[in-house]
Amino acid sequence: MALIVQKYGGTSVGTTERIKNVAKRIARFKKEGHQLVVVVSAMTGETNRLIGLAKEIQTTPDPRELDVVVSTGEQVTIGLLSMALMEQGVKARSYTGQQVRILTDNSHTKARILKIDEDSIRQDLDDGHVVVVAGFQGVDEAGNITTLGRGGSDTTGVALAAALRADECQIYTDVDGVYTTDPRIVPEARKLDRITFEEMLEMASLGSKVLQIRSVEFAGKYKVKLRVLSSFQEDGEGTLITVEEDSSMEQPIISGIAFNRDEAKLTVLGVPDRPGIAYQILGPIADANLDVDMIIQNVGYDGTTDFSFTVNRSEFDNARAVLEQVKTHIGAREVVGDKSICKVSAVGVGMRSHPGVASRMFRTLAEEGINIQMISTSEIKISVVLDEKYLELAVRVLHKAFELDQVS
Amino acid sequence: MALIVQKYGGTSVGTTERIKNVAKRIARFKKEGHQLVVVVSAMTGETNRLIGLAKEIQTTPDPRELDVVVSTGEQVTIGLLSMALMEQGVKARSYTGQQVRILTDNSHTKARILKIDEDSIRQDLDDGHVVVVAGFQGVDEAGNITTLGRGGSDTTGVALAAALRADECQIYTDVDGVYTTDPRIVPEARKLDRITFEEMLEMASLGSKVLQIRSVEFAGKYKVKLRVLSSFQEDGEGTLITVEEDSSMEQPIISGIAFNRDEAKLTVLGVPDRPGIAYQILGPIADANLDVDMIIQNVGYDGTTDFSFTVNRSEFDNARAVLEQVKTHIGAREVVGDKSICKVSAVGVGMRSHPGVASRMFRTLAEEGINIQMISTSEIKISVVLDEKYLELAVRVLHKAFELDQVS
Repeated sequence: MALIVQKYGGTSVGTTERIKNVAKRIARFKKEGHQLVVVVSAMTGETNRLIGLAKEIQTTPDPRELDVVVSTGEQVTIGLLSMALMEQGVKARSYTGQQVRILTDNSHTKARILKIDEDSIRQDLDDGHVVVVAGFQGVDEAGNITTLGRGGSDTTGVALAAALRADECQIYTDVDGVYTTDPRIVPEARKLDRITFEEMLEMASLGSKVLQIRSVEFAGKYKVKLRVLSSFQEDGEGTLITVEEDSSMEQPIISGIAFNRDEAKLTVLGVPDRPGIAYQILGPIADANLDVDMIIQNVGYDGTTDFSFTVNRSEFDNARAVLEQVKTHIGAREVVGDKSICKVSAVGVGMRSHPGVASRMFRTLAEEGINIQMISTSEIKISVVLDEKYLELAVRVLHKAFELDQVS
Repeated sequence: MALIVQKYGGTSVGTTERIKNVAKRIARFKKEGHQLVVVVSAMTGETNRLIGLAKEIQTTPDPRELDVVVSTGEQVTIGLLSMALMEQGVKARSYTGQQVRILTDNSHTKARILKIDEDSIRQDLDDGHVVVVAGFQGVDEAGNITTLGRGGSDTTGVALAAALRADECQIYTDVDGVYTTDPRIVPEARKLDRITFEEMLEMASLGSKVLQIRSVEFAGKYKVKLRVLSSFQEDGEGTLITVEEDSSMEQPIISGIAFNRDEAKLTVLGVPDRPGIAYQILGPIADANLDVDMIIQNVGYDGTTDFSFTVNRSEFDNARAVLEQVKTHIGAREVVGDKSICKVSAVGVGMRSHPGVASRMFRTLAEEGINIQMISTSEIKISVVLDEKYLELAVRVLHKAFELDQVS
């Protein structure tokens, strides 16, 4: 008997018919003798419908009240799924974030989980219940409803698995695993049987969208065995996300090509080149609760330097407004930005032991006449910022250049 | 400065446009210097949509999970209305039943309020906030979400007004007050300026549907000044529901003609006429959580009697099934029932001092050839059960017979 946390996304519970199918799947696991905690998202389209209502009233909805409205989406699903489980003859019990008590900080619409009370859930599991928990939501110390931000249901799943020391956390989604890249762009993309947390982290953060990045961080930190599976296929092992590199077979150099078209870049030109300047620029950005992705600062000349970073495209205008203030304050020359960019990355733990990955990547892009605007590297990934129009072409040629279409 | 509790029903907040209008109205009250607690229902159709989803999954949805699902309707409205108030420059803050803490018993789908924590609300009011509370919902001792049953938002409003010792509880609805009867049936029906709690109780319980009966009981018990108003008219005093009879003007004998077509009657024939038999019949009905309205037992002969009562039409089948068991147990002859009935009542505190109301009522019906199936009376009302097809005719002729179309 194992304790398994399963998470079903919005499309998996998109209609009452699909909810019934999910209930049947869960009933089979239950019959095998497992203890099950199931985390669910809102039914497809529901979160957007609720945000739409809010925006009809306020152009920028108040974050506290938006969380009150949006969190109802998952609450409906937990009730419906619990009913569907009872119809399958399975004892079930639903929990909102508040009822579990998933304690978060008070950053509405992007809260972070601080602590999970596991007592009631554990009690229900011991009594033979399947426990159905609303993903994406929590409650702060003062009792306000919070949400974890888009994709936060994955984080709920992993955090519960960690708190309960579950044997495995299974993320059911509309894809059957993690691919070498998006098959809609490269039809030859292959499913990976396993991938390391580090690689998955880079893949997710770069926009592969299979798993929310925070959930992978969480899983890595608390050593939760994480598996991505399709909720529409009966069989299939999905992709296992592991702590260890797979030493039993030859390591591929690159595991996948990730990309992200939701970013925008901002550059502060003519920044006085003195200690503490990066903090003076990024401090106010962080204070405004804006997430920064790539950060690039080149060597300066003439006592000044240029400072660039990327943000989520939806936060471009806010970030730019903050920078205009910063510019005056630090005596920089100008703030420029561009929303029509994309980021493409080659990811793989194998590149640690294989030099020349970067040069192969740059050569491949050069051969197609694609100009590289920014470069950033880590131990296991190389990212480039390109004009948005080159995205599909760049992903295709890199996928081929690193032989990802070949079965290893 | 007064402390006012206002309650807006589903049609008043049926669209985001209407929510904005409600916010404007509240902003005007706030500007006049009042402290305001606003209770809202789910947007029109939302509760039915949610129940519909539940019924797609379970023919008889699990009550605990149904409450989890259905309570989201009001939760959406409180968030949206709070946003709309902020857009009007009014500080606002939403509360679910759980957040207020409206403590109820654990009778899911028809819970009763036990206690209201007023501390946070009072604090917010003192800080200048309009407090927006989700109607219809609460939480039990164990933290389960409960709902108060259809129309329960009125009860939430009155209970809050009582707990906060508010100066007035205003119920905004799609009618501009309480009428002598339903104007859709009798176009000459008149709006009453005031009505006593006792009369309102009889009117509401008999299906006038302006206010939920429990809210009127609550208001009477805690002496909450209650007023029914239209949310679509700018002016208008509505109908005030008072403790005292109005002694300043001549009391009309009858205040209104109420009716209810949602009932069904059940009769147990050939019941052994011995002490305790009523309890033996109605005990199991109460245990099955079925509400009984009229109860009639006539004198017996041959050592047996017939025992009749009415229930909500939707509970007819359940009640009948219970009675079939009871029949065998007590040795009665037969259980018969009829779903095609209606109940029509004349209500008025004036009948206390005016004998002959009953005879005038029965004569009026007889003149139209309408057969009376059951009769039940209280100090301030006379109810008759008729074949459903006579409902409109009976209401019209009684409204005229008691001169309710004449301005008094």
